[in-house]
Amino acid sequence: MDQTARILPPSPDIAARAHERLAGLATPPGALGRVGEIGAWIAAAQGEVPPRPLTDVRLVVLAGDHGVAAHGVSAYPPAITEAMVRTIVAGQAGVSALAREHGVTVTVLDVAVDADLSDLPAAVTGRKVRRGSGAIHLEDALTRAEAERSLALGAEVAGELVDDGAQLLMTGDLGIGNTTPAAALVAAVLGLPADEVTGRGTGIDDDGWARKRDVIAAALERVEGRTADPVEVLAALGSADLAATVGFLIEAATRGVPVVLDGLMSVACAVVAQALAPGAAAWWVAGHRSTEPAQTHALKSLGLEPLLDLGMRLGEGSGAVAALPVLRSGVAVLRDVALLSEIMPG
Amino acid sequence: MDQTARILPPSPDIAARAHERLAGLATPPGALGRVGEIGAWIAAAQGEVPPRPLTDVRLVVLAGDHGVAAHGVSAYPPAITEAMVRTIVAGQAGVSALAREHGVTVTVLDVAVDADLSDLPAAVTGRKVRRGSGAIHLEDALTRAEAERSLALGAEVAGELVDDGAQLLMTGDLGIGNTTPAAALVAAVLGLPADEVTGRGTGIDDDGWARKRDVIAAALERVEGRTADPVEVLAALGSADLAATVGFLIEAATRGVPVVLDGLMSVACAVVAQALAPGAAAWWVAGHRSTEPAQTHALKSLGLEPLLDLGMRLGEGSGAVAALPVLRSGVAVLRDVALLSEIMPG
Repeated sequence: MDQTARILPPSPDIAARAHERLAGLATPPGALGRVGEIGAWIAAAQGEVPPRPLTDVRLVVLAGDHGVAAHGVSAYPPAITEAMVRTIVAGQAGVSALAREHGVTVTVLDVAVDADLSDLPAAVTGRKVRRGSGAIHLEDALTRAEAERSLALGAEVAGELVDDGAQLLMTGDLGIGNTTPAAALVAAVLGLPADEVTGRGTGIDDDGWARKRDVIAAALERVEGRTADPVEVLAALGSADLAATVGFLIEAATRGVPVVLDGLMSVACAVVAQALAPGAAAWWVAGHRSTEPAQTHALKSLGLEPLLDLGMRLGEGSGAVAALPVLRSGVAVLRDVALLSEIMPG
Repeated sequence: MDQTARILPPSPDIAARAHERLAGLATPPGALGRVGEIGAWIAAAQGEVPPRPLTDVRLVVLAGDHGVAAHGVSAYPPAITEAMVRTIVAGQAGVSALAREHGVTVTVLDVAVDADLSDLPAAVTGRKVRRGSGAIHLEDALTRAEAERSLALGAEVAGELVDDGAQLLMTGDLGIGNTTPAAALVAAVLGLPADEVTGRGTGIDDDGWARKRDVIAAALERVEGRTADPVEVLAALGSADLAATVGFLIEAATRGVPVVLDGLMSVACAVVAQALAPGAAAWWVAGHRSTEPAQTHALKSLGLEPLLDLGMRLGEGSGAVAALPVLRSGVAVLRDVALLSEIMPG
């Protein structure tokens, strides 16, 4: 991961050619709306007009536990993280069903689950960074070395998928309590107060929300003066799974492979990744608007508008997978619609 | 078409069972948002939990010309209608590309194209009602008999598709100038002024918009006092293709087959269909929000919120096809996600 130079965007020349083709289709100018725009973006990312069909799409669900989960910030007990990792491995989670429907290959990576998953395949568990991450209102989530190791792990995973031919990548999150560090990351990087980033996660009540807000506020106060360096922010307020997600997003952009972002975790990590690797955001599209307020702030800072707004808040990469057909629609129109010049009468 | 009784909605019992299953999935309650809701709606429409996969989806593009097109309300000449019918038959239109991508069978029906299309297959042209429809600011679009014949034609086509095993239907529109009568229908049924329903269609400039608004205002004034009867409204302000669309929508609801509505034309016809056959709207879902203001008014009156909002204004049923993957996502989660009770630890 070279973080010294600004990451170059998808080719402006190819983007211009894609827009030229779009404008020449047998449709009124602009009539395809964002479907046409996203097709042109994919073309530019691939360096080819028309773009190739998106047949190789990979989602990695990065799983980890979070110390804050023991402090009343979630509607579910931490043991659910392990159960859900196993459910994804069994192909029976929400994202599994969506991924099968839309032709996405899902893998789950145990980055920091606080459980012994050693009976699962090594591809899932073999690169675990640690069990859980620190409760961020009381202590740093990670050491600096662990944060760096997590970043490198995410980059390594993305690089392997790119080497293996992935045309489009997605990240998903899994881990009870993870909306708390994710919201804290957004608040720290964008300079927002806890009130504005605290959401209801998997479904906490008003008391739970207030506890969560207090945890985020305490965490932000604890790290005051240490937020200029994004790696430091990840170590202090993030987690191993979130740091790995940041590394994944930067590597995808560096390698020139587009990413569909998912909900709060994915977009919070994108904000940190863009801070670490300016320009990377040009390689990402926002899949869906989650119900988490911090996601809206984070998307705005990245200049991204989600493709879908369906009230989803499942995590696991489900919103990215649900949005994939919009990207495929964009590719299809650029590939398969006649040019107006071919069909005009006279 | 029996228009005397209120159309019954999808089974409330099955809907309740579908929601019960949804609530029991290994996802936090409500976390699937509208994806879960739409899956439950499909289940209720099918009378089966979980719902069957949507493998047989049919779109009919109802084509016709409009007298108003000769009066400066469109950015394109009327001859484009014929060209686009041929482009759909050739499988090269915008909707053709989207339908291939998403597994939808498309047929185009020449209801009232003002051209000789007799070289095309009889399935396309064999049931033509007339060539074009009257310029609605000057004369009625159709005779009452033609309006009734068009309604019956649309119902017949929908009935044939249902008999043939279609699980989900869509209507698309094709015809230069058609946003003018569609907006007039919405204005007449909902009691709105021309200013509030006039949009830019395929892309007219400010002068064109003002002309279009004046045409709609003149049409509304011309038919004042005749808007209580929806069939009369279709004859006066609609067109043969729009009347056929109304018949199609009513028949689908009567036969208990769900429909994904498309843009302005589809939704304007839905408003008329709901007026003719109260209760029918329970069988429809809105595919996408078009950029036409009349569609927003019409959707609101039907109590429908679109699944997609991507700035599309192509017509042809393209927005309905683009939204289909959201319905398939809903079906997939209800079918394939584990129940929480199956995976809970302990």
